[in-house]
Amino acid sequence: MNPLFISNIYEERRNKLSASFSHGIALFLSNNESPANYPANTYRYRQDSNFLYFFGLSIPNIVGVIDFERNRSLLFGDDYEIDDIIWMGNQPKLMNLAVEIKVDEVRPYKELASFIKNKPVHFTPPYRSENRIELARLLNRSIDELSPSIELIKKIVSLREIKSYEEIVQLEEACEIGVKMHTIVMKYCKPGITERELYGLAEGIALGMGNGTSFPIILSQNGQTLHNHEHNLILEKGRLLVMDAGAENVMNYCSDYTRTLPVSGTFTKQQKEIYEIVYQANIAAIANCKPGIQNIENHKIAVTVLTEGLQKIGLMKGNMEESVALGAHALFMPHGLGHQIGLDVHDMEDLGENFVGYDDTIKRSEIFGWGALRMAKMLIPGHVITVEPGIYFIPHLIDIWKKEKKFEAFINYDKVETYKNFGGIRIEDDVLITKDGHRVLGTHLPKSVVEIESILKP
Amino acid sequence: MNPLFISNIYEERRNKLSASFSHGIALFLSNNESPANYPANTYRYRQDSNFLYFFGLSIPNIVGVIDFERNRSLLFGDDYEIDDIIWMGNQPKLMNLAVEIKVDEVRPYKELASFIKNKPVHFTPPYRSENRIELARLLNRSIDELSPSIELIKKIVSLREIKSYEEIVQLEEACEIGVKMHTIVMKYCKPGITERELYGLAEGIALGMGNGTSFPIILSQNGQTLHNHEHNLILEKGRLLVMDAGAENVMNYCSDYTRTLPVSGTFTKQQKEIYEIVYQANIAAIANCKPGIQNIENHKIAVTVLTEGLQKIGLMKGNMEESVALGAHALFMPHGLGHQIGLDVHDMEDLGENFVGYDDTIKRSEIFGWGALRMAKMLIPGHVITVEPGIYFIPHLIDIWKKEKKFEAFINYDKVETYKNFGGIRIEDDVLITKDGHRVLGTHLPKSVVEIESILKP
Repeated sequence: MNPLFISNIYEERRNKLSASFSHGIALFLSNNESPANYPANTYRYRQDSNFLYFFGLSIPNIVGVIDFERNRSLLFGDDYEIDDIIWMGNQPKLMNLAVEIKVDEVRPYKELASFIKNKPVHFTPPYRSENRIELARLLNRSIDELSPSIELIKKIVSLREIKSYEEIVQLEEACEIGVKMHTIVMKYCKPGITERELYGLAEGIALGMGNGTSFPIILSQNGQTLHNHEHNLILEKGRLLVMDAGAENVMNYCSDYTRTLPVSGTFTKQQKEIYEIVYQANIAAIANCKPGIQNIENHKIAVTVLTEGLQKIGLMKGNMEESVALGAHALFMPHGLGHQIGLDVHDMEDLGENFVGYDDTIKRSEIFGWGALRMAKMLIPGHVITVEPGIYFIPHLIDIWKKEKKFEAFINYDKVETYKNFGGIRIEDDVLITKDGHRVLGTHLPKSVVEIESILKP
Repeated sequence: MNPLFISNIYEERRNKLSASFSHGIALFLSNNESPANYPANTYRYRQDSNFLYFFGLSIPNIVGVIDFERNRSLLFGDDYEIDDIIWMGNQPKLMNLAVEIKVDEVRPYKELASFIKNKPVHFTPPYRSENRIELARLLNRSIDELSPSIELIKKIVSLREIKSYEEIVQLEEACEIGVKMHTIVMKYCKPGITERELYGLAEGIALGMGNGTSFPIILSQNGQTLHNHEHNLILEKGRLLVMDAGAENVMNYCSDYTRTLPVSGTFTKQQKEIYEIVYQANIAAIANCKPGIQNIENHKIAVTVLTEGLQKIGLMKGNMEESVALGAHALFMPHGLGHQIGLDVHDMEDLGENFVGYDDTIKRSEIFGWGALRMAKMLIPGHVITVEPGIYFIPHLIDIWKKEKKFEAFINYDKVETYKNFGGIRIEDDVLITKDGHRVLGTHLPKSVVEIESILKP
């Protein structure tokens, strides 16, 4: 265990959670091994982040319980058998692990069902099928009748979203790995190499320095396809390469960066124009990050900069304020400005996006583009968010909107047509909200046109 | 799709399967996306290998059906919605994919439950929880009452275990990636580097050239721990590094190699002695690979060479034949000589090891060591198997056996005690059984003491 975390940290977190509940128990199921193509061939093990936050152990087949009424915490699980130890080497005893994280009691797994019987049970939304099956069994309900606790969700969000000093150290480490992933791709990006080779280099860095990537790497010359996980193309002169990738450090904290590179080493005039707009949007939104600001304001700043820029080069037109409010810019940036980041790259997304990014003061918009914003609510010190504006020319979306004559007052479709082979540009950084403002995490990763072109020069 | 596979290959395979069944249907559920830490953050997609074999498509959320009575094949699934295409780019229509693989009909997913109603349904053992839930729903049974079809399992094994020319080309490609993974580790293996860095380099190669690793890489100075997926150690002068790792190529065919390297660049005298024994066992077992031989004979050849070698250096003693038959060698090699390899690294292990490696002529031994052999039955042309003898000094196992005075007539425990810090050595290759004998797949990877020491020399 990381020395920073050998302390009362997990006990303190559980106590803070307990302070909001007077009865019942909270049940935290570990994630178990997840098979790829047969039972024993499992994916890289990833513990549930709520389990990590309150119990810190990255091991499968255990359940953590916080008993609110008796103010006790328990682990239900079984030690390895002697036969397992022959194959797996010496394994720590659960009791010793429990002492490290200051859990009061360890009990055999088979006692769990009777322990929770007749107690009000709070649990978070199960996202793995084996945990849905297990919860249904434990609670004697059908799989479709599992009701996660809204009260528990809200309280967990209020705790996990404020990153402590120890956590920020971990996030910085994840950022350094992310920076190295992007740096190696900048070094090898050139016409003729395949997307797959670059992707292998980047993921190799993430695996070699930490716990792998924080999400499947997006690395594509078709950056306009936002959820693109294909890597089959050969890099071509004149095109843009978008890489959206981050790392998980060994303590499971995440980073998330996007950079867009001209394969040729230098941007064309047209690429540079669009790049500058996205860059200015990134800079302006980051500059405005501070406590007391709603993050939807930062989204608004970014899309306003985009709209202004796109008007200047003749792709958009019309009344600026109206254009932004109605979401005409969403043709070019259909996604939101960013999301929280922590033990998950979209932090706490298992608990529900609206509980993480929205609250009683702000509801999610129903307007296309605006509605895609994951993190809208007021920023407070300890929040860590991504800032990731982009401009994309998505042929399919352009065709639909043009046919519908959507926002004709704001979009010059004739000119937009000439950009259909452009691709996309996104620039993303990870930002900590401090008492006085903000701090961009990680070593500076080349970002401006000049910086990008310098690092790509042979 | 790979040009070699644009043909009637999938239809032919389905027809061969159908030839054994006169009524009912076979149901092949695709693997779906598998979440790591929240629903949208999924592991690298891996299709089910039976689905790949009969339907060839590496996409989630579809079901392939072979209707034995009507001699038809169907796909149940739904095309992407326009909204998805905005985010994911253009996606092929299921109907077009069906034409490529010569499937007769495509139907919406929601029609599947009524289509299979009242039909005898054959299916393979579901190993993913979401498919267990879905099968239970489709068949209107409880999750614990799902009965895979033994008849289907046996027929699939009989087809998949004979690799066609097209498949061997794919396996060779996977081998070439595996060779590159090991070669890069040989290049960078030296005191001071961490296991994790080497592991990142190897997995980066697998990702950059294909579909990633065929199983979680084993790369450890603690090679005596057979299922060791920790990579936290710094490489130390004088120790041995075991790497057991293979790749999956883009068509999902697998390779699997093990090499053991002296971190210092040269083996100590003691290491060389043990290495030579394992090397001779590997060579002897491979030399004996040919049609008509039961693979348990090859296992016997390997453990006999090990026993002879260990007797020569005083770690074992006593009557050779008896020692081997009773399994005294299993203190040093508790595992089997190998397994089949194909679309899975342990090929078809989801169907049940005993159906893959055993048949009516040979039953699994209950003796420790012998019983761990995965592939025992008679070799025939088209089989591809691994050959992976090893010698390990597993302190925990030594302690248990010594205390029990187990095989005291065959094991010199006093001398074995002095090897407790040795670690382990394993050497593994992938071997195709040909009409006349065998062929080791892939470019030769340094294996003898001389070859290993030469490649490690700076």
